[in-house]
Amino acid sequence: MDREEGEAFQDRYPEDVAHCYGCGRLNPHGHHVKTRWEGEETVTRFTPEPHYTAIPGYVYGGLIASLVDCHGTGTAAAVAARAEGPGAGGRDRPGELPRFVTASLHVDYLRPTPLGPELEVRGRATEVTARKVVVEARVLANGQVTARGVVVAVRMPEGMTAR
Amino acid sequence: MDREEGEAFQDRYPEDVAHCYGCGRLNPHGHHVKTRWEGEETVTRFTPEPHYTAIPGYVYGGLIASLVDCHGTGTAAAVAARAEGPGAGGRDRPGELPRFVTASLHVDYLRPTPLGPELEVRGRATEVTARKVVVEARVLANGQVTARGVVVAVRMPEGMTAR
Repeated sequence: MDREEGEAFQDRYPEDVAHCYGCGRLNPHGHHVKTRWEGEETVTRFTPEPHYTAIPGYVYGGLIASLVDCHGTGTAAAVAARAEGPGAGGRDRPGELPRFVTASLHVDYLRPTPLGPELEVRGRATEVTARKVVVEARVLANGQVTARGVVVAVRMPEGMTAR
Repeated sequence: MDREEGEAFQDRYPEDVAHCYGCGRLNPHGHHVKTRWEGEETVTRFTPEPHYTAIPGYVYGGLIASLVDCHGTGTAAAVAARAEGPGAGGRDRPGELPRFVTASLHVDYLRPTPLGPELEVRGRATEVTARKVVVEARVLANGQVTARGVVVAVRMPEGMTAR
């Protein structure tokens, strides 16, 4: 298992942009979404707590949107880093990933997602340019696809942090 | 101010479907999103807690998606009830609303949403059929539109609750 397979993308964000409620390792209140390579796909696994309910028995759609979102920006970062090679993009430390933000998010809820089992978000980049990565993802519960998502992720604008 | 103007849509959902993490009055952990009529538009106001951060200083996109989502299903319920008139749709109590669920959610993040001020989600139904309501919404911070969303809401399938 190489470095990419093992360490979550979100754990490789620079410290000053690692506070996202969905996936930032430095946000003590957040979901701590973690996405990793599995072959050519990226995978996020997450087990919602019981209070993340929609209609009783099913997962809250806003949480599903959040998982797709952070899966998408994380995948975009990993794909961009792979395309550019080590040290590209002004990153400071070995393995550090560029930070992407969400330009648009689309989720189709195909069927209710049962609340209880671990969820899996699986995806891949379908379009990659210097500035933008499009990620398509599907959400599975008990091996069945319950939702599909598309994230258009763009490189974080320079002005967004004090870096 | 008539009943519709005053009471939040989400507070008029039947008890067995009022547990949504985003907007259910019976979910003690949730956001308790509240949507009301203001003239021909529906409005949700929400001030995110400081930990709902994306990049520091800005609101987490997953929370914005959640606000748009619950604003959309709430608006769909209110619009359907208005179209059908009192007592239609098998509702048990006066003022009770039919429950809609999300078939699809789309959010365009136009610019970073500042974390701190109260957010406003304003929207209206753009398509209404017996089964489906399409709601278009915009998210404002300090009076500036930061995101736009579209929710396709459909009547909750019969089989989703034990009712």
